[in-house]
Amino acid sequence: MASDATNSTPALQARVVLQQCLSARLMIQPASEGKEAEYVQIERGMVVYVCFLQGATEEIISKIASSILNARLSETDTGRLVSILDLPGDVLIIPQATLGGNLKGKGMQYHRNIGKDDGLKLYTQFLEFLEGTVQNSTAKCDKNIAVKYGTYGNRQVFSMETNGPYTHYLEF
Amino acid sequence: MASDATNSTPALQARVVLQQCLSARLMIQPASEGKEAEYVQIERGMVVYVCFLQGATEEIISKIASSILNARLSETDTGRLVSILDLPGDVLIIPQATLGGNLKGKGMQYHRNIGKDDGLKLYTQFLEFLEGTVQNSTAKCDKNIAVKYGTYGNRQVFSMETNGPYTHYLEF
Repeated sequence: MASDATNSTPALQARVVLQQCLSARLMIQPASEGKEAEYVQIERGMVVYVCFLQGATEEIISKIASSILNARLSETDTGRLVSILDLPGDVLIIPQATLGGNLKGKGMQYHRNIGKDDGLKLYTQFLEFLEGTVQNSTAKCDKNIAVKYGTYGNRQVFSMETNGPYTHYLEF
Repeated sequence: MASDATNSTPALQARVVLQQCLSARLMIQPASEGKEAEYVQIERGMVVYVCFLQGATEEIISKIASSILNARLSETDTGRLVSILDLPGDVLIIPQATLGGNLKGKGMQYHRNIGKDDGLKLYTQFLEFLEGTVQNSTAKCDKNIAVKYGTYGNRQVFSMETNGPYTHYLEF
Protein backbone atom coordinates (compact mmCIF):
# COMPACT_ATOMS: atom_id res chain seq x y z
CA MET A 1 0.00 0.00 0.00
CA ALA A 2 2.86 2.35 0.76
CA SER A 3 4.01 2.03 -2.85
CA ASP A 4 0.59 2.86 -4.30
CA ALA A 5 1.42 5.49 -6.92
CA THR A 6 -2.14 6.63 -7.58
CA ASN A 7 -4.10 9.23 -5.67
CA SER A 8 -6.96 6.82 -5.11
CA THR A 9 -5.76 5.39 -1.80
CA PRO A 10 -8.90 5.33 0.36
CA ALA A 11 -8.79 7.65 3.35
CA LEU A 12 -7.94 6.15 6.70
CA GLN A 13 -11.11 5.29 8.68
CA ALA A 14 -9.71 3.82 11.87
CA ARG A 15 -6.52 3.20 13.80
CA VAL A 16 -6.20 0.18 16.07
CA VAL A 17 -3.45 -0.93 18.46
CA LEU A 18 -3.42 -4.53 19.74
CA GLN A 19 -1.59 -5.88 22.79
CA GLN A 20 -1.53 -9.35 24.29
CA CYS A 21 -2.07 -9.62 28.04
CA LEU A 22 -2.15 -12.09 30.92
CA SER A 23 -4.73 -9.90 32.64
CA ALA A 24 -6.09 -6.38 32.28
CA ARG A 25 -8.48 -4.20 34.29
CA LEU A 26 -10.31 -1.11 33.10
CA MET A 27 -12.48 1.41 34.93
CA ILE A 28 -15.83 1.83 33.22
CA GLN A 29 -17.46 4.17 35.73
CA PRO A 30 -15.61 6.58 38.04
CA ALA A 31 -16.50 6.72 41.71
CA SER A 32 -19.26 9.16 42.58
CA GLU A 33 -20.88 10.15 45.88
CA GLY A 34 -21.64 6.98 47.80
CA LYS A 35 -20.72 4.73 44.86
CA GLU A 36 -17.44 3.01 44.26
CA ALA A 37 -15.80 3.02 40.85
CA GLU A 38 -16.77 0.14 38.53
CA TYR A 39 -14.27 -1.98 36.65
CA VAL A 40 -14.21 -4.73 34.05
CA GLN A 41 -11.44 -7.30 33.92
CA ILE A 42 -10.16 -9.86 31.47
CA GLU A 43 -7.73 -12.71 31.92
CA ARG A 44 -5.40 -13.96 29.21
CA GLY A 45 -6.28 -12.31 25.93
CA MET A 46 -6.02 -9.17 23.87
CA VAL A 47 -6.36 -5.46 24.59
CA VAL A 48 -7.72 -3.49 21.62
CA TYR A 49 -7.33 0.31 21.50
CA VAL A 50 -9.62 1.68 18.81
CA CYS A 51 -10.06 5.12 17.25
CA PHE A 52 -12.46 6.03 14.43
CA LEU A 53 -11.50 8.82 12.04
CA GLN A 54 -13.55 11.21 9.95
CA GLY A 55 -15.42 9.48 7.16
CA ALA A 56 -15.50 6.12 8.95
CA THR A 57 -18.55 4.10 7.90
CA GLU A 58 -20.41 1.08 9.24
CA GLU A 59 -18.72 -1.12 6.62
CA ILE A 60 -15.42 -0.76 8.43
CA ILE A 61 -16.80 -2.38 11.58
CA SER A 62 -16.90 -5.94 10.30
CA LYS A 63 -13.43 -5.56 8.80
CA ILE A 64 -11.94 -4.43 12.10
CA ALA A 65 -13.77 -7.12 14.07
CA SER A 66 -12.74 -9.84 11.63
CA SER A 67 -9.11 -8.72 11.66
CA ILE A 68 -8.72 -8.60 15.41
CA LEU A 69 -10.60 -11.86 16.03
CA ASN A 70 -8.87 -13.85 13.29
CA ALA A 71 -5.34 -12.47 13.14
CA ARG A 72 -2.86 -15.04 14.45
CA LEU A 73 -1.28 -12.98 17.22
CA SER A 74 -1.80 -15.10 20.34
CA GLU A 75 0.81 -17.59 21.46
CA THR A 76 -0.26 -21.01 22.70
CA ASP A 77 1.58 -22.82 25.48
CA THR A 78 3.57 -24.63 22.82
CA GLY A 79 4.61 -21.37 21.13
CA ARG A 80 2.26 -21.59 18.15
CA LEU A 81 0.53 -18.38 16.99
CA VAL A 82 -3.25 -18.66 16.76
CA SER A 83 -6.17 -16.25 16.68
CA ILE A 84 -7.76 -14.97 19.87
CA LEU A 85 -10.83 -17.07 18.96
CA ASP A 86 -8.70 -20.21 18.69
CA LEU A 87 -6.59 -19.53 21.80
CA PRO A 88 -9.30 -18.95 23.17
CA GLY A 89 -8.67 -15.68 24.99
CA ASP A 90 -10.59 -12.70 26.28
CA VAL A 91 -10.96 -9.35 24.51
CA LEU A 92 -10.89 -5.90 26.13
CA ILE A 93 -11.87 -2.96 23.91
CA ILE A 94 -10.64 0.51 24.91
CA PRO A 95 -11.94 3.57 23.04
CA GLN A 96 -8.89 5.72 22.45
CA ALA A 97 -9.50 8.94 20.54
CA THR A 98 -5.91 10.08 21.12
CA LEU A 99 -4.77 7.45 18.60
CA GLY A 100 -6.08 9.74 15.86
CA GLY A 101 -3.59 12.43 16.79
CA ASN A 102 -0.91 13.89 14.55
CA LEU A 103 2.15 15.54 16.07
CA LYS A 104 2.54 19.12 14.80
CA GLY A 105 5.49 20.83 16.44
CA LYS A 106 5.13 20.09 20.15
CA GLY A 107 1.36 19.78 20.12
CA MET A 108 -1.01 17.03 19.04
CA GLN A 109 -3.72 17.78 16.52
CA TYR A 110 -6.87 15.71 16.24
CA HIS A 111 -8.36 17.22 13.09
CA ARG A 112 -8.89 13.81 11.52
CA ASN A 113 -10.86 12.36 14.44
CA ILE A 114 -14.51 11.55 13.94
CA GLY A 115 -17.08 13.70 15.76
CA LYS A 116 -18.12 12.51 19.22
CA ASP A 117 -21.69 11.49 18.31
CA ASP A 118 -20.69 9.62 15.17
CA GLY A 119 -17.80 8.05 17.06
CA LEU A 120 -20.06 6.80 19.84
CA LYS A 121 -22.50 5.37 17.30
CA LEU A 122 -19.75 3.45 15.47
CA TYR A 123 -18.18 2.33 18.75
CA THR A 124 -21.53 0.95 19.94
CA GLN A 125 -22.15 -0.83 16.64
CA PHE A 126 -18.62 -2.21 16.70
CA LEU A 127 -19.12 -3.69 20.18
CA GLU A 128 -22.44 -5.27 19.17
CA PHE A 129 -20.93 -6.76 16.04
CA LEU A 130 -17.91 -8.05 17.93
CA GLU A 131 -19.98 -9.63 20.69
CA GLY A 132 -22.27 -11.25 18.13
CA THR A 133 -19.35 -12.69 16.20
CA VAL A 134 -17.72 -14.05 19.35
CA GLN A 135 -21.02 -15.59 20.50
CA ASN A 136 -21.48 -17.28 17.11
CA SER A 137 -17.98 -18.66 17.30
CA THR A 138 -18.19 -19.90 20.88
CA ALA A 139 -21.69 -21.40 20.46
CA LYS A 140 -20.25 -23.97 18.05
CA CYS A 141 -17.77 -25.35 20.52
CA ASP A 142 -16.92 -25.38 24.16
CA LYS A 143 -15.09 -22.07 24.36
CA ASN A 144 -15.27 -19.32 26.89
CA ILE A 145 -14.34 -15.88 25.59
CA ALA A 146 -15.17 -12.74 27.55
CA VAL A 147 -15.66 -9.51 25.61
CA LYS A 148 -15.33 -6.45 27.85
CA TYR A 149 -15.16 -2.80 26.90
CA GLY A 150 -14.56 0.69 28.13
CA THR A 151 -16.98 3.60 28.29
CA TYR A 152 -16.74 5.92 25.30
CA GLY A 153 -15.51 9.38 26.28
CA ASN A 154 -14.38 8.36 29.77
CA ARG A 155 -10.90 8.49 31.16
CA GLN A 156 -9.50 4.97 30.63
CA VAL A 157 -8.06 4.13 34.07
CA PHE A 158 -6.32 0.90 33.31
CA SER A 159 -3.78 -1.70 34.43
CA MET A 160 -2.28 -4.59 32.53
CA GLU A 161 0.08 -7.53 33.02
CA THR A 162 1.70 -9.21 30.06
CA ASN A 163 4.45 -11.70 29.28
CA GLY A 164 5.01 -9.84 26.02
CA PRO A 165 2.68 -7.09 24.72
CA TYR A 166 3.49 -8.09 21.16
CA THR A 167 2.14 -4.66 20.12
CA HIS A 168 0.63 -4.38 16.65
CA TYR A 169 -0.70 -1.36 14.80
CA LEU A 170 -3.47 -1.71 12.24
CA GLU A 171 -5.03 0.79 9.86
CA PHE A 172 -8.45 0.49 8.23
CA MET B 1 1.09 14.28 4.74
CA ALA B 2 -1.70 11.90 3.84
CA SER B 3 -2.70 14.21 0.98
CA ASP B 4 0.77 14.30 -0.55
CA ALA B 5 0.08 13.70 -4.23
CA THR B 6 3.65 13.08 -5.29
CA ASN B 7 5.58 9.83 -5.20
CA SER B 8 8.40 11.39 -3.22
CA THR B 9 7.00 10.66 0.24
CA PRO B 10 10.03 9.39 2.16
CA ALA B 11 9.81 5.76 3.26
CA LEU B 12 8.77 5.07 6.82
CA GLN B 13 11.81 4.58 9.08
CA ALA B 14 10.23 3.96 12.46
CA ARG B 15 6.94 3.38 14.24
CA VAL B 16 6.45 4.52 17.82
CA VAL B 17 3.57 4.08 20.26
CA LEU B 18 3.42 6.27 23.39
CA GLN B 19 1.42 5.64 26.55
CA GLN B 20 1.23 7.60 29.78
CA CYS B 21 1.59 5.64 33.03
CA LEU B 22 1.49 5.99 36.79
CA SER B 23 4.01 3.16 37.06
CA ALA B 24 5.43 0.48 34.80
CA ARG B 25 7.75 -2.50 35.28
CA LEU B 26 9.68 -4.36 32.62
CA MET B 27 11.79 -7.51 32.76
CA ILE B 28 15.25 -6.90 31.29
CA GLN B 29 16.78 -10.29 32.06
CA PRO B 30 14.85 -13.56 32.44
CA ALA B 31 15.55 -15.82 35.39
CA SER B 32 18.30 -18.34 34.82
CA GLU B 33 19.75 -21.11 37.00
CA GLY B 34 20.38 -19.66 40.43
CA LYS B 35 19.58 -16.11 39.30
CA GLU B 36 16.30 -14.30 39.65
CA ALA B 37 14.84 -12.30 36.79
CA GLU B 38 15.89 -8.63 36.63
CA TYR B 39 13.44 -5.77 36.20
CA VAL B 40 13.48 -2.02 35.67
CA GLN B 41 10.68 0.19 36.93
CA ILE B 42 9.47 3.72 36.36
CA GLU B 43 6.97 5.81 38.25
CA ARG B 44 4.77 8.44 36.66
CA GLY B 45 5.86 8.97 33.09
CA MET B 46 5.74 7.63 29.57
CA VAL B 47 6.10 4.18 28.02
CA VAL B 48 7.64 4.27 24.53
CA TYR B 49 7.32 1.26 22.21
CA VAL B 50 9.76 1.67 19.33
CA CYS B 51 10.33 -0.24 16.10
CA PHE B 52 12.88 0.62 13.40
CA LEU B 53 12.10 -0.25 9.81
CA GLN B 54 14.30 -1.03 6.81
CA GLY B 55 16.27 1.97 5.64
CA ALA B 56 16.20 3.68 9.04
CA THR B 57 19.27 5.88 9.52
CA GLU B 58 21.02 7.53 12.44
CA GLU B 59 19.43 10.87 11.52
CA ILE B 60 16.04 9.58 12.61
CA ILE B 61 17.23 9.04 16.18
CA SER B 62 17.35 12.70 17.20
CA LYS B 63 13.95 13.31 15.59
CA ILE B 64 12.31 10.50 17.55
CA ALA B 65 14.00 11.52 20.80
CA SER B 66 13.06 15.17 20.33
CA SER B 67 9.44 14.30 19.53
CA ILE B 68 8.87 12.02 22.50
CA LEU B 69 10.66 14.29 24.98
CA ASN B 70 9.04 17.53 23.82
CA ALA B 71 5.54 16.54 22.72
CA ARG B 72 2.97 17.92 25.16
CA LEU B 73 1.29 14.66 26.13
CA SER B 74 1.61 14.57 29.92
CA GLU B 75 -1.10 15.99 32.14
CA THR B 76 -0.13 18.03 35.20
CA ASP B 77 -2.14 17.92 38.41
CA THR B 78 -4.04 20.98 37.18
CA GLY B 79 -4.92 19.30 33.88
CA ARG B 80 -2.44 21.19 31.70
CA LEU B 81 -0.61 19.22 28.98
CA VAL B 82 3.17 19.51 29.14
CA SER B 83 6.14 17.55 27.82
CA ILE B 84 7.59 14.65 29.76
CA LEU B 85 10.67 16.83 30.39
CA ASP B 86 8.49 19.58 31.88
CA LEU B 87 6.24 17.27 33.93
CA PRO B 88 8.87 15.95 34.84
CA GLY B 89 8.20 12.24 34.36
CA ASP B 90 10.12 9.02 33.79
CA VAL B 91 10.63 7.32 30.44
CA LEU B 92 10.53 3.57 29.75
CA ILE B 93 11.67 2.46 26.30
CA ILE B 94 10.46 -0.93 25.04
CA PRO B 95 11.90 -2.35 21.82
CA GLN B 96 8.91 -3.71 19.91
CA ALA B 97 9.68 -5.24 16.53
CA THR B 98 6.09 -6.46 16.18
CA LEU B 99 5.03 -2.82 15.58
CA GLY B 100 6.51 -3.13 12.10
CA GLY B 101 4.01 -5.83 11.16
CA ASN B 102 1.48 -5.68 8.35
CA LEU B 103 -1.61 -7.86 8.48
CA LYS B 104 -1.88 -10.05 5.36
CA GLY B 105 -4.89 -12.33 5.54
CA LYS B 106 -4.73 -13.86 9.02
CA GLY B 107 -0.97 -13.67 9.37
CA MET B 108 1.40 -10.85 10.19
CA GLN B 109 4.26 -10.05 7.85
CA TYR B 110 7.38 -8.23 8.99
CA HIS B 111 9.06 -7.68 5.63
CA ARG B 112 9.60 -3.99 6.35
CA ASN B 113 11.40 -4.53 9.66
CA ILE B 114 15.04 -3.62 9.92
CA GLY B 115 17.56 -6.48 10.27
CA LYS B 116 18.41 -7.53 13.84
CA ASP B 117 22.00 -6.24 13.86
CA ASP B 118 21.14 -2.87 12.34
CA GLY B 119 18.13 -2.63 14.64
CA LEU B 120 20.21 -3.28 17.75
CA LYS B 121 22.76 -0.67 16.60
CA LEU B 122 20.09 2.00 16.10
CA TYR B 123 18.32 1.04 19.35
CA THR B 124 21.59 1.41 21.30
CA GLN B 125 22.35 4.77 19.66
CA PHE B 126 18.79 5.92 20.33
CA LEU B 127 19.09 5.10 24.04
CA GLU B 128 22.44 6.90 24.31
CA PHE B 129 21.07 9.99 22.57
CA LEU B 130 17.92 9.98 24.69
CA GLU B 131 19.83 9.62 27.96
CA GLY B 132 22.22 12.39 26.93
CA THR B 133 19.37 14.73 26.04
CA VAL B 134 17.58 14.04 29.31
CA GLN B 135 20.79 14.57 31.31
CA ASN B 136 21.39 17.90 29.56
CA SER B 137 17.86 18.98 30.33
CA THR B 138 17.85 17.91 33.96
CA ALA B 139 21.33 19.30 34.66
CA LYS B 140 19.99 22.82 34.11
CA CYS B 141 17.37 22.57 36.81
CA ASP B 142 16.34 20.48 39.74
CA LYS B 143 14.54 17.69 37.88
CA ASN B 144 14.66 13.99 38.37
CA ILE B 145 13.85 11.96 35.26
CA ALA B 146 14.63 8.26 35.07
CA VAL B 147 15.25 6.74 31.66
CA LYS B 148 14.88 2.95 31.68
CA TYR B 149 14.81 0.54 28.79
CA GLY B 150 14.19 -3.02 27.73
CA THR B 151 16.67 -5.51 26.30
CA TYR B 152 16.61 -5.66 22.52
CA GLY B 153 15.39 -9.02 21.24
CA ASN B 154 14.09 -10.21 24.62
CA ARG B 155 10.52 -11.05 25.51
CA GLN B 156 9.10 -7.85 27.05
CA VAL B 157 7.48 -9.15 30.25
CA PHE B 158 5.71 -6.06 31.43
CA SER B 159 3.09 -4.55 33.70
CA MET B 160 1.64 -1.06 33.76
CA GLU B 161 -0.78 1.08 35.74
CA THR B 162 -2.27 4.20 34.23
CA ASN B 163 -5.01 6.73 34.90
CA GLY B 164 -5.41 7.10 31.15
CA PRO B 165 -2.97 5.59 28.62
CA TYR B 166 -3.61 8.46 26.25
CA THR B 167 -2.16 6.27 23.50
CA HIS B 168 -0.47 8.03 20.57
CA TYR B 169 0.99 6.61 17.40
CA LEU B 170 3.89 8.34 15.65
CA GLU B 171 5.59 7.66 12.35
CA PHE B 172 9.08 8.82 11.38
